[in-house]
Parts: sequence; C-alpha cells; structure tokens
Amino acid sequence: MNIGFIGLGNMGAPMALNLLKAGHQLQVFDLVASAVAELVQAGATSAASPQEVAAARPEVLITMLPASVHVRKVYLGEGGVLAAVDPSVLLIDSSTIDPQTSREVAAAAQRQGNAMLDAPVSGGTVGAKAGTLTFMVGGEQAAFDKALPILEQMGKNIVYCGGAGNGQVAKVANNMLLGISMIGAAEAMSLGVSLGMDPKVLAGIINTSSGRCWSTEVYNPWPDVVETAPASKGYAGGFGADLMLKDLGLATEAARAAKVPVVMGATAQQLYQTFSAQGNGHLDFSAIIQSMGKVEK
Amino acid sequence: MNIGFIGLGNMGAPMALNLLKAGHQLQVFDLVASAVAELVQAGATSAASPQEVAAARPEVLITMLPASVHVRKVYLGEGGVLAAVDPSVLLIDSSTIDPQTSREVAAAAQRQGNAMLDAPVSGGTVGAKAGTLTFMVGGEQAAFDKALPILEQMGKNIVYCGGAGNGQVAKVANNMLLGISMIGAAEAMSLGVSLGMDPKVLAGIINTSSGRCWSTEVYNPWPDVVETAPASKGYAGGFGADLMLKDLGLATEAARAAKVPVVMGATAQQLYQTFSAQGNGHLDFSAIIQSMGKVEK
Amino acid sequence: MNIGFIGLGNMGAPMALNLLKAGHQLQVFDLVASAVAELVQAGATSAASPQEVAAARPEVLITMLPASVHVRKVYLGEGGVLAAVDPSVLLIDSSTIDPQTSREVAAAAQRQGNAMLDAPVSGGTVGAKAGTLTFMVGGEQAAFDKALPILEQMGKNIVYCGGAGNGQVAKVANNMLLGISMIGAAEAMSLGVSLGMDPKVLAGIINTSSGRCWSTEVYNPWPDVVETAPASKGYAGGFGADLMLKDLGLATEAARAAKVPVVMGATAQQLYQTFSAQGNGHLDFSAIIQSMGKVEK
Amino acid sequence: MNIGFIGLGNMGAPMALNLLKAGHQLQVFDLVASAVAELVQAGATSAASPQEVAAARPEVLITMLPASVHVRKVYLGEGGVLAAVDPSVLLIDSSTIDPQTSREVAAAAQRQGNAMLDAPVSGGTVGAKAGTLTFMVGGEQAAFDKALPILEQMGKNIVYCGGAGNGQVAKVANNMLLGISMIGAAEAMSLGVSLGMDPKVLAGIINTSSGRCWSTEVYNPWPDVVETAPASKGYAGGFGADLMLKDLGLATEAARAAKVPVVMGATAQQLYQTFSAQGNGHLDFSAIIQSMGKVEK
Repeated sequence: MNIGFIGLGNMGAPMALNLLKAGHQLQVFDLVASAVAELVQAGATSAASPQEVAAARPEVLITMLPASVHVRKVYLGEGGVLAAVDPSVLLIDSSTIDPQTSREVAAAAQRQGNAMLDAPVSGGTVGAKAGTLTFMVGGEQAAFDKALPILEQMGKNIVYCGGAGNGQVAKVANNMLLGISMIGAAEAMSLGVSLGMDPKVLAGIINTSSGRCWSTEVYNPWPDVVETAPASKGYAGGFGADLMLKDLGLATEAARAAKVPVVMGATAQQLYQTFSAQGNGHLDFSAIIQSMGKVEK
Repeated sequence: MNIGFIGLGNMGAPMALNLLKAGHQLQVFDLVASAVAELVQAGATSAASPQEVAAARPEVLITMLPASVHVRKVYLGEGGVLAAVDPSVLLIDSSTIDPQTSREVAAAAQRQGNAMLDAPVSGGTVGAKAGTLTFMVGGEQAAFDKALPILEQMGKNIVYCGGAGNGQVAKVANNMLLGISMIGAAEAMSLGVSLGMDPKVLAGIINTSSGRCWSTEVYNPWPDVVETAPASKGYAGGFGADLMLKDLGLATEAARAAKVPVVMGATAQQLYQTFSAQGNGHLDFSAIIQSMGKVEK
Repeated sequence: MNIGFIGLGNMGAPMALNLLKAGHQLQVFDLVASAVAELVQAGATSAASPQEVAAARPEVLITMLPASVHVRKVYLGEGGVLAAVDPSVLLIDSSTIDPQTSREVAAAAQRQGNAMLDAPVSGGTVGAKAGTLTFMVGGEQAAFDKALPILEQMGKNIVYCGGAGNGQVAKVANNMLLGISMIGAAEAMSLGVSLGMDPKVLAGIINTSSGRCWSTEVYNPWPDVVETAPASKGYAGGFGADLMLKDLGLATEAARAAKVPVVMGATAQQLYQTFSAQGNGHLDFSAIIQSMGKVEK
Repeated sequence: MNIGFIGLGNMGAPMALNLLKAGHQLQVFDLVASAVAELVQAGATSAASPQEVAAARPEVLITMLPASVHVRKVYLGEGGVLAAVDPSVLLIDSSTIDPQTSREVAAAAQRQGNAMLDAPVSGGTVGAKAGTLTFMVGGEQAAFDKALPILEQMGKNIVYCGGAGNGQVAKVANNMLLGISMIGAAEAMSLGVSLGMDPKVLAGIINTSSGRCWSTEVYNPWPDVVETAPASKGYAGGFGADLMLKDLGLATEAARAAKVPVVMGATAQQLYQTFSAQGNGHLDFSAIIQSMGKVEK
C-alpha cells in the first residue's frame, strides 16, 4: 500500500519504520533532515513538503505531530495537506492534541470529501518501536474499518471510540485519571510506608482492595514493588513527567471549554508543573513521589 | 467459644449475629438498650458494662466502636476493659480509628500481657450482614493465627498487615486512594461525556487502559455504566459520603503527624466536606459526581 | 477629537457614552443593531464594519470585545482594522484577553507603524457608567501619554504597566490573587463564625492583622460586615462569578504557557467552575461563600 | 505584682523578661534548666513544678507552651495547675493551640472558680523581645480588663475577641488566610514577572488594586520589592515555614471538627508540608515562592 507519513520524531519514526517492515511503500516528510534520512535509508522516499506528500495520492496519509498548532498548520495552512489532497485519501492524525482542534480539522477534511480519523496513541517510544501501541480512534466507522489493518501493524490494541475527536477525548480523559491516580498512589504509598508498613505488603493489600489501580498494580511508584516499573530502575524511561504535564494541560483546557469542574485534574497538572519547574520533567511521571520527601532522589 | 462483644451499631450488630449463628456463646454490651435486646433475643447474654464483659474471661473480646475517643474510653478509661481483663483474653478492635491511638492501646494491652489486634473492616453493612467483610489486621502473627477462624466467620478476606496498628494504616492508605480515585473517575467521566462520548464506551476504554481503577471498573460513578453500582440505583446504599469523609480525615490527620504531604488526599477530604456541607452526606460516596453538574440529582 | 469605538456591550456602551459626554466625535460599530442605535441617539455616527471605522482615520480607535478570538478577528481578520487603518491612528484595546494574543496583535500593529496599547479595565459596569474605571495599560510610554487624557474621561485610575501586553499581565495576576483571596476570606470567615465568633469582630481583627486583604476589608463575603459590599445586598450586582471564572481561566492558561505552577490559582478556577456548574455564575463572585454551607442562599 | 510564668522557650523567655523589666515579681518554671537559670539571673525565682507555681498564689499565672498536649498536661494533668491553684488567680494561656482544647481547659478552670483567658500571640520572637506582640484574647470581659495592663507590658496590640477560645479562633482564622494569601501572592508575582513585568511595578499595581493584601504590601515574597521583608534578606528570620505549617494544621483540624470546608486552607497546609518535607521548614514562610522555580534558592 502507498502510505504518506508526516512527522518523524521519537514516536513517528519507529511507527513509520514498522510500516516499512510490513511491506508498505512510504513517502515521508519532516522538517529535520536527519530524521528523513533515517527513513530513506530504510527504504522510504522523501518529499519536500506536506503538500507534496498529499499530492502523491497515497491510499493513506498519517501525521504524528507535537501539538495542535502543528496539526492546524500541516492540514489547514498555506501549502498544507488539505489544499492538495485527493478526496480518496484516508487521513489519520495520530498526534495527541485537543479534541476541539481535532474536530475542526476533521470537519474541514470532510467538507472536501476526505475521511479523517483522529488516532492518538499510548505506549510511549517503547511501544512505538515494538509495534505494541494502543490507538484510540475517532471518526466514521467505515474509515476505522479501512484503517484497522494498518494501525495493527503499529499497535496491538486498536479501540474505536465513536465520532470525530473521540479518540482525543478518550485519551485526554484516561490520562487525566492516570495523572490523578499516580499522585494518589504515591501519596498512599508514602503515607503507609512512613507509618511503618512494608511497601510490598501495602501494595499487595491495596491491589486486592478498593484502592487498586493501574498505578499501584503495574506501575507502582515506590521502588522495588513492581520489578518492571520505572520506579525500580531509577525512574528512567517510561512516560516522562513533562508528557504527563502536556496531557493534563490538554485535559484542563478541554474541561474549561466544556465548563466541567476538574479540581483533582487541575491539582495534578499544577503538581506536575511544580515538579517540572524544579528540574524533574525528564524523569518518568511516577517520580512525582520524590516530591513527597519519602523516596530518595 | 466464649466471646465478648462491645459495640452493637450498624456494623457491630450483624457481625455479632454472625458469630452467634456460627455457634459461639456471646456476652454483649452497648449503650443503646434496644441494640442489646436484639442480640439477647438471638441468644446472647448481656453485660452491664465493658468491664463486666472483660471480667467474664471470654476467650476473645471484640470491640466495634465509632471513633478513637470511644476506643480509648472503653479500653483505657475508668471501668474500662484493660482494668478488668485476664491476660489470657485475646483483644480484637475492629473500629476504624487513627493508627496512633490503635498503637497506644495495643501497647497498653501488651504491657499487662494481653495480645491485641487492630482489625478494621471494609465492606459496609451489606458485607457485615452477609459475612463477607474484608479485615485488615495488625498485631502479632500468633494472635492473628488464633483470631483467623473467628474473623472468617464474619468476613471472607482476612489480610495480615504486620505489627500493631498496621491494619489501621492499610485501611487509611487504601481508603485515601479510593477517595482520590473516585473523584478522579467522576471528573474523567464527566469530562469525556460532556465532550460527546458514550459513557459505557468511555468506561470500557479506561478499563482497558492506564486510567483503570476499582472506581471505574466496579463502582463507576456515572449512572447505568455498572448495573450493580450505587450510581445505577440513585446513589442509595453503598458506602456513605460521610463515612468516606471520616476516613479521609483519619488519613490527613495521620499524614500530618507523619509529616507526609498529601495534596490530593487533603483536596479529596475538602471536596467531600463541601459535598456534605451542602446536605449530601447520606448519599453513596460516588454521588460526588453530582457536584460537577453533569449528572442530575 | 475623532474617536472610533468598536464593541458596545455592557462595558463598551457606557464607556463610549462618557466619551460623547466629554465632547468627542464618535464613530461606532457593534454587531448588535440596538447597541449601535443607542449610541447614535446619543450623538455618535455609525459604521458598517470595523474596517469602516478604521478607514475613517480617527485620531484614536478603541476596542472593547469579549475574548481573544474577537480581538484577533477585528484586528487581524479579513476586513479587519489593521488592513485599513492609517499609521497615524492610535489603537487602544480595552478587552480583557490573554497577554500572548495581546502581544501578537500589538506586534502586527507596530509592523505597519501603528502604536497600540492594551488597556484592560477593572471596576465593572458600575465603574464604566460612573467613569471611575481603573485602566491597566501596556505599550510605549509615548502612546500612553497620548492616550492618558482620553482614558481619564472613562476612568479615574490609569496605571502604566510597561511594554505591550503588560496591562493584561497586571490584570491577570491581580485578579488571580483576588480570586484566591476571596475564597480564602470566605473560608476564614466561615471557619471563625462556625467556631463561635461574631463576624464583625472577626473581620475587625483580621483587618488589623496579617490576614487582611481587599476581600476582607472592602468586599467581605459574610453578609452585613461591610454595608456596601454585595454580600450585604443578596450578592447581586458587583463582579459576577462567571467573570472571575473567565479571568482565572486566562491566568492559568498564561501560567501554563509560561511554565509557572499556580496550585492555588488553578484550585480557585475549579472552585468557581464548580460554583458556576451548580447554577450560580450570575451571582457576585463573593457568593462563593455559599458553597461552604454556612451562609444561607 | 506577683506573676507565675510557665514555659520559657523562644517566645516565653523574652515575654517573661519584659515582665521582670516592668518591675513584677516572677516565679517561673520550665523543664529546661538553662532556660530557668537565665530568668533567675534576671531576677525571677524558680519553682520545681507547675503545681508549685500555682500553689504560690500569684495574682496572675501565665503559660506559654508548644502544643495542646502540653497545655492539657500542665493544667489538667496530675500535679497540674488546676489541682493546686486558688480561685483568685487569673489564668492566661498564651500558647497557640486548637480552640477546642482551649475551651475545655477554660471550662475546667471556671468550674473551680478561676477566670481564664486564652491569649495567643503573633509577632514572633522579634516581637516578643521588643514587647510589640499582638495578643488575641478570649474569655470574660472582666478578666480581660484585669489582664490588659500586664499584656500591654509584653505587646502593643491587645485585641478582645469575645468568649473563651475566641483568641485561638481569631488566630487560627487569620493565619489560615495569611497562609493562603502568601502562596497566592507568590503565584501572582511569579506569574507576572515570568510574563515580563518588573516586580516592583507589579507589586505597586496590585497594592492599589483588588489583589492587595498584607503579603503583597508588607511582606512581599519576591526579593527586593519590600526592603524590610525576609524575601530581601535571604528568607532568614521572620515567621518560619514550619510554624505556618503548624498553624495551618490547627486550622484544618478545627475546620474538620466544625464541618467547614476549607479547600484553599488545606491546599496551603499541604504545600507547606511539601516545602518542609523537601528540607525548607526553617526558612521564612514567604520562601514558599522558591517552590515555584522562578526565584533562586
């Protein structure tokens, strides 16, 4: 299949490589020449602009960009995708951006006859390389059905979330809850251990009780409770605190627009902002437990 | 077995009844005459004071009291249990109180040769009646082994948490995380649904993702997502908001004493205090979602 | 002097009327015909578009618009002010918007030779009618000096804040602190009175101590402590809770962009969002004290 | 006048010295021998126990103790003051403790005929030495009138707050608001300066606007805005962050008992707890601004 791919950063590059490995023809674009070179060496052809990618009439065009402003520019800007793309091309935006922008771009695409999906991912760079990402997908069911086999070559859990923008909504809601739960888990572990409990015993009890959550079971922030968790490896790798901060920003901004109070979500955002402002944004997001003073840096 | 039982409230009475049904001899005490009468009718004998229960040399003496102040009075006060009890009697306090008080009373018991366990429960009045409570138990291992068969006649999940007070610590840490997760779940559901997602689809996605927790899976606060949850039954029954408020108060007070920052735990406490001050303390604790204005009262 | 005036809402209309009374010639524009009619009846002439106002070469052109999106559109959009205005015209935007947008528009104006000031106000509709507004002004000193006599005909406190956008920064920082202080004052009054103190005595002590702030001295949220405060008049009039909510949204969004943690600011925003979601957005912002359950609705 | 004085710590010692300087006869007690020795050298006589101080029939007996537990012990414990004191002695407790304990002790005193005042202070060790403390006094008006001349020898602002415990209530309410305002001021200054404003200009605008408070005017947390503030002297001296933390703990605990929601107060407490857990409890409480990452440590 001919696939266009725009955005070859830490996530986009390994995703594109997995498509190449699966036997697809890829035409790629990125502002960073070295990123393009890597893909070309692996068998892709390069394009001089997003518009050139679009004009080449791929069957599917995938974008993986840092933020809403880039998505707007690549799709809607002068020399952008929509100005050049044939209505037959299926558009898939895997960027994590605000649902509002996602819906505006999808509506513009639809007005000119292009099906478009928002398909943000979770699973990080590890999942991107291993092809084990989770995709949360919003858009028409028919477009989803067409995209499914391609997404399955980059991920292993492909979830249909409903109409346009719902992929973003699902991700933003899930990650806001994740940020809240992680800080809650860190507080509960810090409290229990400070009061004399063994961290593994405490985690074991919580994990069979009503406090259990992904953050206590799979990704416990106290060191050496879960062997595979970043907390047991110096809080390296994993999902960076600054990425959690970005997602919490998307969540509270979406909540503001929707007039939904999110006291805990906003508090989580500010605690991650504080953690980042103190120089820790590069650490795994479970390292927020260090700010409570009971786990050594 | 001869068992003394002090405290026959909403929780204590059904727990004591389960022991009677299991064939034990019970001598009981409560300040409320009608509560005592109910147990006597079911086969228990009554005592005139906590001290009389203690002096009767039961093999085990169980207390189930509302708060720390009552536990102190019943065990340490004038005419209290410790002044009259034989060192051979195993003491079990199932009240939910602060770990500090629990440890002080246990230390006083130990000084006069009595083994003592703190064994707070979760599972509510429904679990108390059905005999399906969870007991979180702190104290000596040998005492725990002796108490286990009795506790199993009142509950189905009996967890050993380590030394004296650790039952309280485990409960307080778990329930603090539960309070945080529930509000987080309510915010995430309110946000996602307000942004256009179907509540069941959203819950399904979260429950297979990193945001999943007991509050989204088993006890989802959005109506009709989980059929058996209080949210699907008008927020009646379940675990009252005022009980969650009490537990969050124990958690933040324990955190204050231990010098552990719990920003999320304290925020959860204050949101439940606000909810209660607005007249909603009798509702199930998942009804906190009503304060966000997206689920009708 | 010939003055153009765009935006004749609750604030803009009385401001424009004060300029008419002061003897200026006004050409006005608003999308709402009745708002324009009122000004025309008072002596203004009307224009068919923002561009027509700009093209008429007023000495000063003032805008008073609801939000950033409108400011962008009126100045930068197709048929907007900048496309038609002569470089000699002094531009003054009195809208309360985010500092980032304010600076972008000012930079665009400056590129084509127009001096531009951001001059958001405080004082509400009462101050707008009475001509007693406070203006917080950002931009070149020379432009400020030229604008001063005109602003003095609409306000009585005109403060120079430094370069472009600083008017917005000052307003956003001040109002964030105001929102925080007001909730803090409401909590302190609710706590003290609940614990048995007379509200006037408590306010008197705070006002001579380190807790004193504008919200306790001038605008105390407890009824009948300050006779002239909205709390003593059923929380009507004053500065609406929804307007405070808007300003807190601007503050937290600016903080997100600047990577500054504002835990208290964000909490204040969410408490006002909760208050608004419960149907109270139209009340004066000091009515937030009602959410604490100690002052009757 | 014969005065008994119990508690010669950082606050109590200079207060007692000021009474000696004013010409009173003092009999003093403290557990720390060196603290007693200092006062004896200055002319006081020493007692072997609180009870001995009480039994000596001073006209007034003053206590200045660290926490509720000490106040309970000194007044109500075995060998305590109430067991030995003549009904003619006026009791004044200047400790900062929770209002509930204060009222219990005052009630016990009253039952045996002793007038008792709670008279917590603000002003710190500097004010204690200089005799410029503020006293917030609760109790009978007649007792206040009698105490006034003595308190005036230790302070310069003596405020009558109403019945027993109201001195504590006023202090706790004021200081909670102070903690909230200080963090709010730190956020507003950090935000405004990060967005490009000069700190003095920003402070000047806030101080003439609705955001003004003691924390911006007198004790601004940004360095070199107020020359005399701790922020301009490396955050040394002043009112320690750990003391603010203690007072916020008293406030939230009193709020819990009174069922008053204090979201901002509790958040302030937790932010100070975080600051303290990170090793900064000894700094002036305005140093909380350092946690926002814009003012260097």
